Order: sequence, then structure tokens, then C-alpha cells
Amino acid sequence: MIAANLEIRGADLYFAGRRTADLAARYGTPLYVMDEATVRRNCRRYRDAMRAAFGENALPLYASKACCFKELYRIVGSEGLGADVVSSGEIYTAREAGFDLAKTYFHSNGKTDDDIRFALECGVGHFVADNAEELTALSQIAAEQGKTQAVLLRVTPGIDPHTYEAVNTGRVDSKFGAPIETGAAMALTKLALSLPGIALTGFHCHVGSQLFDSDVLIRSADVMLRFIADVKAVCGYEASELDLGGGYGVRYVESDPVLDLEENIRLVAQRFHAVCADLGIAEPAVRLEPGRSIVADAGLTLYRVQSVKRIEGYKNYVAVDGGMGDNPRYALYRSLYTVVAADRADEPCDFVCDLAGRCCESGDLLRRDAALPAGIGRGDLIAVLTTGAYNYSMSSNYNRLPRPPVVLLREDGSEFIAVKGETFADLIRNDG
Amino acid sequence: MIAANLEIRGADLYFAGRRTADLAARYGTPLYVMDEATVRRNCRRYRDAMRAAFGENALPLYASKACCFKELYRIVGSEGLGADVVSSGEIYTAREAGFDLAKTYFHSNGKTDDDIRFALECGVGHFVADNAEELTALSQIAAEQGKTQAVLLRVTPGIDPHTYEAVNTGRVDSKFGAPIETGAAMALTKLALSLPGIALTGFHCHVGSQLFDSDVLIRSADVMLRFIADVKAVCGYEASELDLGGGYGVRYVESDPVLDLEENIRLVAQRFHAVCADLGIAEPAVRLEPGRSIVADAGLTLYRVQSVKRIEGYKNYVAVDGGMGDNPRYALYRSLYTVVAADRADEPCDFVCDLAGRCCESGDLLRRDAALPAGIGRGDLIAVLTTGAYNYSMSSNYNRLPRPPVVLLREDGSEFIAVKGETFADLIRNDG
Repeated sequence: MIAANLEIRGADLYFAGRRTADLAARYGTPLYVMDEATVRRNCRRYRDAMRAAFGENALPLYASKACCFKELYRIVGSEGLGADVVSSGEIYTAREAGFDLAKTYFHSNGKTDDDIRFALECGVGHFVADNAEELTALSQIAAEQGKTQAVLLRVTPGIDPHTYEAVNTGRVDSKFGAPIETGAAMALTKLALSLPGIALTGFHCHVGSQLFDSDVLIRSADVMLRFIADVKAVCGYEASELDLGGGYGVRYVESDPVLDLEENIRLVAQRFHAVCADLGIAEPAVRLEPGRSIVADAGLTLYRVQSVKRIEGYKNYVAVDGGMGDNPRYALYRSLYTVVAADRADEPCDFVCDLAGRCCESGDLLRRDAALPAGIGRGDLIAVLTTGAYNYSMSSNYNRLPRPPVVLLREDGSEFIAVKGETFADLIRNDG
Repeated sequence: MIAANLEIRGADLYFAGRRTADLAARYGTPLYVMDEATVRRNCRRYRDAMRAAFGENALPLYASKACCFKELYRIVGSEGLGADVVSSGEIYTAREAGFDLAKTYFHSNGKTDDDIRFALECGVGHFVADNAEELTALSQIAAEQGKTQAVLLRVTPGIDPHTYEAVNTGRVDSKFGAPIETGAAMALTKLALSLPGIALTGFHCHVGSQLFDSDVLIRSADVMLRFIADVKAVCGYEASELDLGGGYGVRYVESDPVLDLEENIRLVAQRFHAVCADLGIAEPAVRLEPGRSIVADAGLTLYRVQSVKRIEGYKNYVAVDGGMGDNPRYALYRSLYTVVAADRADEPCDFVCDLAGRCCESGDLLRRDAALPAGIGRGDLIAVLTTGAYNYSMSSNYNRLPRPPVVLLREDGSEFIAVKGETFADLIRNDG
């Protein structure tokens, strides 16, 4: 199977040692299932690999936007990770979960004055400032509150990672940050150094997601360290933090590469150490922002088949009781997932079909050309694998469908409702 | 301006007679604004045009998925429309709003047994059954409840409307319904006629959205009436209802055509009457399912600018405090909207920029190549027009952003909070 927490026993798909059919019977479908042990193992791998490669002050920041609920902050916090947060809502959730906000890094290209005020009041450790307007507002609000805020600046290193456009953020032409190439990053640095209430600690970049080697991270580190050296030469300021963003890839389908995380981090660090020595700069503390690669393979989604259509001469469709409401990634990006008939997992999969969602929209598919057993029918269980990232967090109530619960499978064998499923009453709670 | 409810007075954009800057100041941003008078006018146009063209038993059904909250059901209900509902959540919302459920038509290709049970208990007027599994389950559950349910069958007429794939649902190769061409629609009809608890009333099809002429509706009517005649000949059953689905287009940008709704409906009816006479069948009662064209131009969204970036030699970006969370249609379909600087509406628009959302995702844009005034800056007000359809209803909490309120502008000059804005507490309400 595509991940170590998956197993087939007889006709059944097991996930983290649990029979998925039992989970579906107990909690209903659609159902998000998350495996705590895998989240923790992924956290530890980043933490340990980064410490080994970059030193004790290196820190992975969990990119909360991949999947955000209180219990997840508790888990990643207990593993010693920091968090990348992108809104007051994420800060609020982290705070309510008891997460150490000193270890949060506040992103976003559109922070409002209210966001800035709230983050300062909550004691967010670091801002990752995106633009001059934000820096100016932050400086004023920090002054009002009598505070000095640690700040990194988001800069764009001008690297095209050749990934899909929507997850490609390190180019010069980006809505994020200030480009180094045009001089805007240096100007933003000078502004940050000039403003009261701002304590510049370093720089951030993010060159893209779903990276399966370290080429772009190494190129980013090169460009960013050179920029740090330039800033030192021009401004006499030496950065103490370098945040290289997120990005290692996740296996959604068998054809995706297997990544050696430790070796890749070691390769980036090797270049990092050499370039720092070469440029004569003190090694900044390194941050990475894994999100997808912390939670994706810790999740799967269970659905029940509602109908099977064989359109002779055209195509087959299997429709389930969820879809773009709980997983909009096919509709958004044509993302590929692995699909398993979870209660017929021992049968040959020679029935090729589109796995369709239940929304009244043709684009609501979960997978084109899925291979399922020919005997599949209403009531059968479907597992879509590797849905821990960007499924629950992007879910909507489109078609007025309640969002499914998130059941966390504990390491001790127990289960915890990390997020209750929405009720119909929840749907109209705010309606006048 | 693109719609009759928009007006520029001095520097200000007015919507339904209100100064948008006042609305933003009173309710904050992002803000969904809806104009009740326009919803009502759109309802009346469909109702009156359909009655005039097809006769008194014709009925427009509001396609709830376009925008669904309690007050909207009250409004369309008071205008005499029925409703197309696609889930138990929509049925629940309609019921709680006091909508006459006898006038609802229950769609979806993925109705569960629970949906069927709930709909029967609520007294939903018509099912639009999609497939054999649903018919069989409905028959059994109706028998358990001692009921007979009125049912239309969804069939696909095999018409390619040449619209965008995701809104193209009338082809033979569709996840929806049963194709006429392959014989599946006739087989489904025979099944429906054979099952206890099912009272077949007619047929439904839907060939696509955003249609700017009546060509595909006329072709649909042709195919569907011929199918009704075939069913009469083969089964001795004559349909009393024909639902031609949704579809008339909405002007999002000035280059979209202006549609004469009344004339288009008249053209469809002209063919309808002629074909019925030609085939010797009784004229079925006609239903259309306008959703977008009822609510789209009744809505706009207000944002505040957070930053302006001029990337020399590349592109400009204006970032606002909302984005794909409240309007995912650019991210999903690259949909085009008209953008106005609502508090600088009298200034020349010679600053070309991408209007970016605040989500941590490159694909989060609201509009590419928007033209805005060169002086635009943090705090300025942006209106995205024609957002009444598929914005609130598709909204998510991605990036843990609370969903904005929906403020309804009453005809009497008052304002009504149709949907309260979500609070941070709402975001974690279901978190364990």
C-alpha cells in the first residue's frame, strides 16, 4: 500500500490497525479519519532531521493551513514543533488549544489592522511581514501597545520550481513578499530596520509545494544566504533566522516518488553550511514549514457508494455520499488520489470508472479513471487515501452539506472526536 | 454599470440606493451584500414570463444551491416560486424558513437512505430521481412510511451545450441521470412505473449553465418531448411534468451579452407548443430551475485593500482582506468578475493589476488584470460585482477565515442580517 499505516486483511482495508468498515459503521459517512501516530512520526522526522543537519536551534513549523483544529495544535506542540499561522482564526485556534504562541510565525499577504492587533495581544512570536503597508501598520500598533515585535520579511528569490501554477510562489511575479531581483526586498529590509516597534530577526521565502528533491530548496538557500550577506554589507544587519518555507512532497499515488526526507534535509544543510562559511556570515537558525507532509498520509476519507452507472460506449460512474464539499482538490487542481474499495479490498479492480461526488455540479469528481471491483454497489465502502492535508481545511457547506466529523485514532487504540460532524442546526445557526 | 441596481455618485459606488462605503463602515469587510428588490424582480420575471409563455401551471423553481439561507427561501416563496433542493441540508433550511415543501424538487445523484427518509418525513413535493438504486431505496422507504412519492426522472438528452466542462451536464457522458440514447432512460422509466410507492409525474433534464440564447433549451425540449411521446407509445404512460433545468446566463462583465429573458422563454414555448401538437401529446407542466439568474446580480462583495505591489517589469498586485474563502470561483473556474474601486469610483482606472485574495495560496485571486485607479492603497474599498450566486454558498473556512455576514438590503430601505458573520468561537465550536 501507499503508506505504512495501511493494510489489507481479507476483504477489509485497515488504517492504523483499525478496520475501516467498523469506523464507518460507528461514525457514519462521509468520515475524515486521522492517525495520530503518523502525525507524530512525521513531526519527529522533521524535528530530528533538522536538528541533526542544521543544529539544535533549527525548528520545523507546522503549516496549520494544511489541517487546523485544536487537537492538531496539541499534538504538534507536544512534539516540539512551532506553527506557521495565516490568520487570526488560526491564532485563536492555537491559543485555545494551549499552543505556545511564542513559537508561531504569522503569515499572510493581507493582514488587517484587526489581525495585527489580535496577534500582538495574543503574543504571537514572529510576524512574517509581506509588504510595506503591513510593516507600517504593525509598527504603529506595536507602538500603541508599547511592544516590540519580532519580524521576518517575506522575500521572493525568483526561482521557478516548475510545479503547478497555484502552488508556485517563489517567482518574482508573485502576490507574496518582495522580490530580491528588483531591489524591493532590500528596500523592505531598510524600512523594517528603520521602524520603531519592529525587531527584524530574518527572512522567509517559499518556493513551492510538492517537491520531490532538494534542488529548489538548495537554490533558495543559495539566493537567500547571498541576500543575507548583501543586507549585512549594505545595512550592517545580520539575520539570525532563515525560514525556507514548506514543500517536501507527499505520495498520493503509487507513481509518486518515495522521498528520503532525512537525506534531502542533509543535502540542503550541506550546501547551507558551505555557503554560510563561504560568505562569512553567521549561520542563521533554520525553519522549514511542512504542512502537507505532516498530515496528508495521516488521513483518509470514507464514503459510501450510492449508485453505479454503466454508460455503454462511454464511461462508468460510481457516486458516493461526499465530494467537492469535503475534498475540493480535484475540482480545484485536478489532484490525483488513490481510491480503494474498503470492504472489497481483496477483489480484482477491473472496473474503470469516474468516482463522482454527490454535489449538483459536473465538476464534482473525486477521481477520474479509478479502478474498482466490478461487483461494487450501493452501500459499499470507499476509502480515498492521503486526505489529511487540504481536505478538512478547505471543506465547505456547498450544496448545504454538513461537514463530516474528524475522528482521531489514538496511539493507545482509543478514538477521539477531534471535530464533531456538523448538524443541520449548525448549518442555519447564523441565519436570520 | 453592469446592472440596474448599481450607480456611481461622486467618488462612491451605490448599490440598491445605498452608499457601499457606509455599508462597509457599518458591517466591516469582507461583506456580502444582497439586494432584495433585485431578487424579487428576477423571481417575478421568470414567473410571469413562464406563465405567459407556457400557461398558468408553469413554475420556476429556485435552484437553492446558488445561494441558500433561510431568508432567501422566504423571499422566493413569497414570490410564488418553487425550489430545487439538492440535500437534506437545503430541505432543512427551507423547512425552517417556512417554505412550502410541496413545491420543492429534490435533486442529487447521491441521495442516501437517510436523505430519502428525511425528505419523505418533511413532505418534499417531488423527488428528481437520478438512478435505479435511488428509485429502489425510495420505493422501499416510502412503503415503510405508507406513502406514495411523486417522482420525476432525470434523463440526459445527449446535448453538448459547448459550455465549460464543469457546468456541462446534458451530455450522454454525465454523472447525472440516465441517457436517452442508450436506452437507459426508458429502462429507468419502466422501473419507476413498476415500483410501489412511486408516482411518476414526468422527466427532468439539465443541459448546462450560463446560456445566452435558447438554442440548447429548444433542442432539449425537442428531445425530451420526443422521449415523452416514446414513453407514451411504449409504456402507455404520459408525463404531466417536464423540467428543463436551469441555465440562462448572467452578465458578469460588460462583454457578456444582454439577454431578453421574456423573448427567450417565448421562443422555447413556441417550439414546445408546436412539438407537443405535432407529437399528439398533452402539454406537460413546464418547470425551469433558475438559480444564478435569480441571485447573481442581486449580490456584491465588499473588501478592503491591504497592500499594493508594483513589481517592476512584471505585474502589479492589489491584495484584499478576503478571497477564495468567500469566492472560490476564480480558483475553481477562472471566472471573470467586474471589479470597482468603490470609494474612488470617479477616478480613471489605468492601474492594471491582479486582485489577490489573502489566502496563503498563489491561486487565490479574485480577478486577473483588473483596472483600478492608480492612487489605490491600504484601506480603500473594493466591490466585486455580481457575486450573489455561488459565492456565499461555496464559501469555506480555508485559512481559518470566518465567513462574512450577508446583509440584505430591504426594499423599504432597512437592512437585515440574513446571515450573521462567523466569529472565532464559531470556528472551533465543534473542535474537541
